[in-house]
Amino acid sequence: MDLHILDHRLRVTCISKSGLQHYTHPLIKLIFLRNRTRCKFFSLTETPENYTVVLDEEGFKELHPSEHLQVEGSTWLPLNVVSNGNASSSSQAVGVTKIAKSVIAPLAEQHVSVFMLSTYQTDFILVREKDLSVVVETLVEEFNIFREEGGESVPVHSQDSCNGLQRNGREVPHATVHPVLIPENHFCVMSLDPDTLPAIATTLIDVLFYSNSPKEGASVDQDMECIKFFSFSLIDGYVSLVMDTDAQRQFPADLLFTSSSGELWRMVRIGGQPLGFDECGIVAQISQPLADSDISAYYISTFSFDHALVPEEDITSVMEMLQTQRKEMSS
Amino acid sequence: MDLHILDHRLRVTCISKSGLQHYTHPLIKLIFLRNRTRCKFFSLTETPENYTVVLDEEGFKELHPSEHLQVEGSTWLPLNVVSNGNASSSSQAVGVTKIAKSVIAPLAEQHVSVFMLSTYQTDFILVREKDLSVVVETLVEEFNIFREEGGESVPVHSQDSCNGLQRNGREVPHATVHPVLIPENHFCVMSLDPDTLPAIATTLIDVLFYSNSPKEGASVDQDMECIKFFSFSLIDGYVSLVMDTDAQRQFPADLLFTSSSGELWRMVRIGGQPLGFDECGIVAQISQPLADSDISAYYISTFSFDHALVPEEDITSVMEMLQTQRKEMSS
Repeated sequence: MDLHILDHRLRVTCISKSGLQHYTHPLIKLIFLRNRTRCKFFSLTETPENYTVVLDEEGFKELHPSEHLQVEGSTWLPLNVVSNGNASSSSQAVGVTKIAKSVIAPLAEQHVSVFMLSTYQTDFILVREKDLSVVVETLVEEFNIFREEGGESVPVHSQDSCNGLQRNGREVPHATVHPVLIPENHFCVMSLDPDTLPAIATTLIDVLFYSNSPKEGASVDQDMECIKFFSFSLIDGYVSLVMDTDAQRQFPADLLFTSSSGELWRMVRIGGQPLGFDECGIVAQISQPLADSDISAYYISTFSFDHALVPEEDITSVMEMLQTQRKEMSS
Repeated sequence: MDLHILDHRLRVTCISKSGLQHYTHPLIKLIFLRNRTRCKFFSLTETPENYTVVLDEEGFKELHPSEHLQVEGSTWLPLNVVSNGNASSSSQAVGVTKIAKSVIAPLAEQHVSVFMLSTYQTDFILVREKDLSVVVETLVEEFNIFREEGGESVPVHSQDSCNGLQRNGREVPHATVHPVLIPENHFCVMSLDPDTLPAIATTLIDVLFYSNSPKEGASVDQDMECIKFFSFSLIDGYVSLVMDTDAQRQFPADLLFTSSSGELWRMVRIGGQPLGFDECGIVAQISQPLADSDISAYYISTFSFDHALVPEEDITSVMEMLQTQRKEMSS
């Protein structure tokens, strides 16, 4: 299999709930006005706590500093696994499950923090630029590694980066067991033709920027067991949307599409306290048992918590699996 | 003819060019998200100087005070002339020309300031609430006057308001001759089905909120003789747009419509220095000769200047007319 280090230098930022309106102007530009910006990697995820915005340096320039914006200090690089037909795995599972054993687990063992961003199209594994040499050293046996540079794929060899492994290599992964939350919402992972993005503009703007103000005449029987979670990304021209079925009903039915019609996902939110960015092995802890059971999963990290999405029919076995893991780790 | 005092209490405000981005959030809500606001009267006009926003009190609540927002101190009421079939005028002209002699001139004589807002659908004559009694007293002979209240039209009689006329009545209208500017742009006055507003959302957002930042790859051969002028209004569910042909080309051709296809207008901008809100007779000075010559005209007041739009084929005679008027007044 091939591993591509993509040609994007990313920042991970967070906008407070009350601060979002101050960023309406740059965010609408980044989402809808592609010919006004050079930003090629943009992702915005709303959670109950805040808005996580991951974007490249061109996009980051648009976000003026303010008390409402928090910025993680590092530059992150997105990695991407491409099956080149020779994949040895017989797994039918998709998402983070496919890369759990080959990428996530080895990186966790080498104490490399990862920030995951699954989209409709693929799964981006974000690693800190400073960890790149360790990453290459760790993954070079399993993968042909390429670095994308100005549209070309340049092979990367491990001798280019030999001093990293010593630094992170020998540490034992931290084994905190984080509490999980399993909300009642059902989620869809969707896409649309980027040329039809204007057709959903007002709905998307409404959902992203105004959904916290009560709608005139709307009923207020909100299910307290549901969680607010909405993710939009526009990466290299591809749109991906993750939303619950309540949000989905607001969009025109004929424009958004899922990979298999009617496929719904349940969420496992990881973390009782905000997770931070330094702990390693969080993704591994949940993706390993999913891989063992061949259960597909999307995985979306945010500024505060991590979120795995599993097929709704598998949620019971995932819950049992997590309980078992919990007992084993605490014994 | 009938004169209706509409059921809107309006504020006239102004957002600075550099401050617009701070008002993106409330303005997009007012323009596109009708079910999130009770605002029923909204108008936004961009000029080279600033953005004039006229809106009712529900809409005004959305605009947070800041150094970027100027607010005219008065409450304004919109008047509207409705021909009820018994119109004595044989004029084919439209717009402010139709009401020049019956409304504009008498109010100027009574020293009542007016703020004009022509739209695709009609011409709103805004007067200060405190001047209402003078307005009624002045126009009651010519019109059946109704006050719209909660969806009903209530007849208004002059004895309800007899003390106003003494106050303003005997003053001689001020006869300042303001310089005029006649830019090269050609303008269209357009409308669209409000249900198709989402279809032009990204274009409208681009034009309104991002047109001052250079477009990637756009050429910069801006004609210095042209003026930036764009007006959008959403009043009682009706959309009106005034834009030049350059802006028009950015919109999908099949959604916007004009009253007669291909009708183009030239602008006469009135005022060398910002006009303020207290001088009377500015509209009268230009609309009277237009009425004498039966030339149609739209008229849009803004925070700084007034703007008349006349049919492109009449611009030469309008220019001559203005020159003659100028000579007469200075002699």
